[in-house]
Amino acid sequence: MMLLKNVFLNGQIHDILIDKNRFSKIGDAINIETNDTIDCTGKAILPTFCNMHTHASMMFLRGVGEDLELFDWLEHEIWPREAKLTPEMIYHLSRFAILEMIKTGTTLFLDMYFYTDQTIKAADEMGIRAAITYVGMDNFNVDETQKRIEIAANFLKEKSPSELILKGLSCHSIYTTSEELIRTFKQMSLQNQTYFHIHMSETKKEVEDCLIKHGKRPVALIDDWDILDSKTIMAHCVHLDEDERLRTAKSLATVAHCPSSNLKLNSGQMPLQDYLNQKIRVTLGTDGVSSNNSLSMLSEMKIAALSAKNVANDSTAAKVNNIFKIATSNGFEAFGIQAGKIEEGYLADFMLVDLNNCALMPNINLISNMVYSADSSCITDVFCNGKALMRDRYVPHQEEITEQFQKLCQQIF
Amino acid sequence: MMLLKNVFLNGQIHDILIDKNRFSKIGDAINIETNDTIDCTGKAILPTFCNMHTHASMMFLRGVGEDLELFDWLEHEIWPREAKLTPEMIYHLSRFAILEMIKTGTTLFLDMYFYTDQTIKAADEMGIRAAITYVGMDNFNVDETQKRIEIAANFLKEKSPSELILKGLSCHSIYTTSEELIRTFKQMSLQNQTYFHIHMSETKKEVEDCLIKHGKRPVALIDDWDILDSKTIMAHCVHLDEDERLRTAKSLATVAHCPSSNLKLNSGQMPLQDYLNQKIRVTLGTDGVSSNNSLSMLSEMKIAALSAKNVANDSTAAKVNNIFKIATSNGFEAFGIQAGKIEEGYLADFMLVDLNNCALMPNINLISNMVYSADSSCITDVFCNGKALMRDRYVPHQEEITEQFQKLCQQIF
Repeated sequence: MMLLKNVFLNGQIHDILIDKNRFSKIGDAINIETNDTIDCTGKAILPTFCNMHTHASMMFLRGVGEDLELFDWLEHEIWPREAKLTPEMIYHLSRFAILEMIKTGTTLFLDMYFYTDQTIKAADEMGIRAAITYVGMDNFNVDETQKRIEIAANFLKEKSPSELILKGLSCHSIYTTSEELIRTFKQMSLQNQTYFHIHMSETKKEVEDCLIKHGKRPVALIDDWDILDSKTIMAHCVHLDEDERLRTAKSLATVAHCPSSNLKLNSGQMPLQDYLNQKIRVTLGTDGVSSNNSLSMLSEMKIAALSAKNVANDSTAAKVNNIFKIATSNGFEAFGIQAGKIEEGYLADFMLVDLNNCALMPNINLISNMVYSADSSCITDVFCNGKALMRDRYVPHQEEITEQFQKLCQQIF
Repeated sequence: MMLLKNVFLNGQIHDILIDKNRFSKIGDAINIETNDTIDCTGKAILPTFCNMHTHASMMFLRGVGEDLELFDWLEHEIWPREAKLTPEMIYHLSRFAILEMIKTGTTLFLDMYFYTDQTIKAADEMGIRAAITYVGMDNFNVDETQKRIEIAANFLKEKSPSELILKGLSCHSIYTTSEELIRTFKQMSLQNQTYFHIHMSETKKEVEDCLIKHGKRPVALIDDWDILDSKTIMAHCVHLDEDERLRTAKSLATVAHCPSSNLKLNSGQMPLQDYLNQKIRVTLGTDGVSSNNSLSMLSEMKIAALSAKNVANDSTAAKVNNIFKIATSNGFEAFGIQAGKIEEGYLADFMLVDLNNCALMPNINLISNMVYSADSSCITDVFCNGKALMRDRYVPHQEEITEQFQKLCQQIF
């Protein structure tokens, strides 16, 4: 059992008892002997973030080939370097990404990259929740389709090392992946009672090409393939028409909104407030660092809010409580995990923030301060499933993790 | 004399000698006995930021009345509280704002608020460069015009406590201030060889109302009043037509771009890249916290870059070196201060950043990392005019400053 004393929650000072991995009691003065009592005077407790779309291991590409045209960038800067990656490198890259996510208050991330066993190993060791997907992409080559299906079956068969590692399948996109592979991966996901992830309607070109090839728009297309349901998580969804929004809302599918990436790559601005009005479950993601260039959900919340007001042409759009919700509880909800709220019975994923940090003063509206002014220096402690990932700003092995990362970058560049 | 040993600068390790307030030598191995030698191993040196438009003392309004309609917000949340401010409160609010600016790497700010003597006192004590303006606003009342002119004359007459405090005049805007006051303040500024500051073309409504009242647009109007020259700094400038852009470029006037504020209040997106192409001197500002809600120029750079790519419909717009330049050297240049570059002969305004901070790794493109991923936790030391404002993340009196701020907020709320 763990006891948090004198912690700020919803405008008041409380004590909070954590029994195993759940908040068991929240009260005025809880006096129980525990071997882990934390004095939280001057600190507030908040739910942690879910980074609902990323490619964690791309960390080595931060700042590489900045401001180039897409093809130049891919051909000269990205692909030659990705070709050098080994499984061991992915392990170290994943650890470094997880370190950055913990420092910025994230306890769940949804990942789409390769050498998944290495990312699973890193996440398991560091204690973070990780939704790790095996990625399907066959470039419409039938042999490749079969190969991917076999690998995916083996991937799902292998037991997860812990309940915090959520294995699922993803497909890259409708413009790189065949209907058969997308349909099969979705079916396999359902059979395994797990989620399915895909890049969807990220650019106008994707929509235009889809209309030419299939005579319908991307989300309508995959809905007609029976892909949309409450266990499907679609990244981006910048360009959805009214029909596609209705299909998304009705199906209870999840949207992983990545505003920084969409702005940086000039994919456009997703009309967040419209989606919220239409009761679409929107969550937030950073995408990989090569198009962000950060895994901080703090920075992502501010950009989400500002971009949403702009695209809605309404300064009252994207209210701070809604922005905080898409960054926290909506992500857990998409996976059916009872976390993202500081309430009795909920899983103990939480962060402590320093109310004496300039950026959190005055403490009139803590959620507004988190969305608009907080940065990583505000976060002192991060817990996931009742266990500490960071205490007093220290993540176990952080020096070794950054050292290994530096070494690896020297090998690649 | 101060010696920085082993500091990362432009891709290499250097030693840097600072004599009084200037960089006197940058070399491979400088071996001179000084009583202030700093080992900068693992750190990079960078120029500091100029926050070219803010209302520092509004710190108490952070997060107050979030997401309301403008008039509701002003009438119920802002004005009743501003009415409670005393000169002593402005002193403490200014100190708190300066603390936040130092922590985020700013060594020059341009301020527009009241009880200016208090902000001057705070800035002088804390050692930051501050361009403090007496604000003209007469609501077209002739008695008020004369009163303001007299106060401004006295304000300019009083000697500045140091070369770091740059006194100047500002007018609120063309929709709150008479032609006579604007013209007179500009003339007085010129006579005193100082700058002139004004809110300009912030909203479409301002432009529309100006067209109705004067038959021309705001920047054209004040140009015809002889306001535009190299010592005029215009905040916002969101809505300039081609003629106004040419006038701005030709006059060498400075634009203080405030992208977060413009997005948050839904004023629109300034087409930054177009302005840069037209050789307009653009600088960057946070505006006050009530419309941002942060004084961090780090966060402001990222939002400036992303917004600029979006409004230009071009992912290669707003390149990182240009964004860093508008946030640093362009601001100093607007005041004719030889700072903003780490070069021999330049004034020693600089920051040290921790290259072992996750957000600055890998160190492939330091400027890109500063623009897109750095936060305050990366900055360890800040120097202004050769003197330390922050050493090892500690600003002198920071506890007392935040304590006084907390007390004051309790009095107001």
